[in-house]
Amino acid sequence: MRCTVEAEFCRSLHKAQVTIVGLGLMGGSLAMRLKRDGVVRRVVGLVRRAETAFAAERLGAVDRAATDPARALPNADIVIFATPVRVLMAQLREYAPLFKAGAIVTELGSTKRAIAESLSRLPPRVHPIGSHPMCGKETSGLAAAEATLYEGATWVVSPLPRTPDGVIAVMESLARAVGAHPLTLAPARHDRLVAAISHVPYLLSAALVLAAQSVAEEDETVWRVAASGFRDTSRLAASNVAMMMDILLTNPDAVAEMLGRLRRQLDALSEAIAAGDETRLQILLERAAGQRRRLYPPAIDD
Amino acid sequence: MRCTVEAEFCRSLHKAQVTIVGLGLMGGSLAMRLKRDGVVRRVVGLVRRAETAFAAERLGAVDRAATDPARALPNADIVIFATPVRVLMAQLREYAPLFKAGAIVTELGSTKRAIAESLSRLPPRVHPIGSHPMCGKETSGLAAAEATLYEGATWVVSPLPRTPDGVIAVMESLARAVGAHPLTLAPARHDRLVAAISHVPYLLSAALVLAAQSVAEEDETVWRVAASGFRDTSRLAASNVAMMMDILLTNPDAVAEMLGRLRRQLDALSEAIAAGDETRLQILLERAAGQRRRLYPPAIDD
Repeated sequence: MRCTVEAEFCRSLHKAQVTIVGLGLMGGSLAMRLKRDGVVRRVVGLVRRAETAFAAERLGAVDRAATDPARALPNADIVIFATPVRVLMAQLREYAPLFKAGAIVTELGSTKRAIAESLSRLPPRVHPIGSHPMCGKETSGLAAAEATLYEGATWVVSPLPRTPDGVIAVMESLARAVGAHPLTLAPARHDRLVAAISHVPYLLSAALVLAAQSVAEEDETVWRVAASGFRDTSRLAASNVAMMMDILLTNPDAVAEMLGRLRRQLDALSEAIAAGDETRLQILLERAAGQRRRLYPPAIDD
Repeated sequence: MRCTVEAEFCRSLHKAQVTIVGLGLMGGSLAMRLKRDGVVRRVVGLVRRAETAFAAERLGAVDRAATDPARALPNADIVIFATPVRVLMAQLREYAPLFKAGAIVTELGSTKRAIAESLSRLPPRVHPIGSHPMCGKETSGLAAAEATLYEGATWVVSPLPRTPDGVIAVMESLARAVGAHPLTLAPARHDRLVAAISHVPYLLSAALVLAAQSVAEEDETVWRVAASGFRDTSRLAASNVAMMMDILLTNPDAVAEMLGRLRRQLDALSEAIAAGDETRLQILLERAAGQRRRLYPPAIDD
């Protein structure tokens, strides 16, 4: 591990106290994994509600859970925000005076450009760095958390211009320690790529459910003929809405650009069907099928 | 079982010889299930290639497999076409002289209106009836077939005006015998409903892969950030293209109507994002999430 920051934790994650802000699906799962494998010295959770703190301690997800930032933050070597994007942007500003000198301040938000602006305004005595583990499920909350959530996932690390190499290395170690594969991406590039493979698929899924619902208003038998194809294509529509609103509203440009690409492809397909242009339709559908099969070979996917 | 047709098989499926035309995923799985549970007296497969006939017999999927229609069809009490939609429409015409008097002639095609026209042209000595089991997967062929494929699926039964009640009852018994739930739907209604929950989800999935591919042409890192959301939403894109082309090209009107509904929902969502209209966006996304969670409660889906 290259290391240009002086702090104690940098020589070893094992010596670090980690404070995770928010113990929902992402924060709770991360806490559980860090605890289970003894990755760090101490895992503290900072949550809003006393019930969540109690539940997290009872589950053994954290060494200690607190509702008071003044107790959970000043001793943290690494602070990880695992709250929804716009909540964490407000928390970064609010909690800034509580971070200890030399602390790494990072987050698990699903968009990076807007958050990078908030991170860049943190005082010079801390080391901000963005990150985004590419995992999740459509259920949310501590009850859905599991230590294996990060296993095999790509974990995007998104440094600011001011981020020292050693801090990037600590983040990469943290990602590897929970079974993920670190990948460095600048904030704007991250936002463009995840619009394509996460934000727009969510919108498609939601639009599909709404369109089917409009059919159901006229003939509710439609739900009885829904099979595994509809179930899978509509899965993302059940995602946590507050979280998805934050994501969409902090990444509107990339989402709009990708929706434009999507509309052009849908138009090409529907025009080929309307015109009965079999050659054109076959070229497009075979291209999509071939790409999907290369990405997820049937033997593994099935 | 109500029964107004005189044929022997009607008193009991157990006495019937069933000939399945095409032993791919659907036909092969049906043959396996009928054989495994001894639902009928004899299961015969009619296939194009001798290798498939050999493989089906070796797998024990059928009692006998033939490549010659003149050997496989004249003794069949129930003929079930499990070939792609437009192939079976041609086969119905070609094989009509070979069907025995009183035989039930049915099929497993994914659209019903165009096929109903072909069925209605069969000679009066046979009993045509449409059907569509709502199951499948994105892999195809006999190698992917499994006796449990129909378990729990809705099996649409789509009678013609000339279909006797007894023939409907036989089809319902057949569906129940393989673990499926029969549901009677007229052809046009079927086509409209499956456009909403099957054909358009497939097009969305294909369009999503093509749009992501256009991003990948500029930055192939996009595939490294793809997680379970993209995997599920893109799954249908890997479906058998020949089969899907037949489906789309025999159901263009309902597909176009449903694509229109989908576009309107996508437009509403993207306008709310572009305008930063949080209230509107939240209403739409919560409506989609609520509907999806009612259809597939998280505890079961997860």
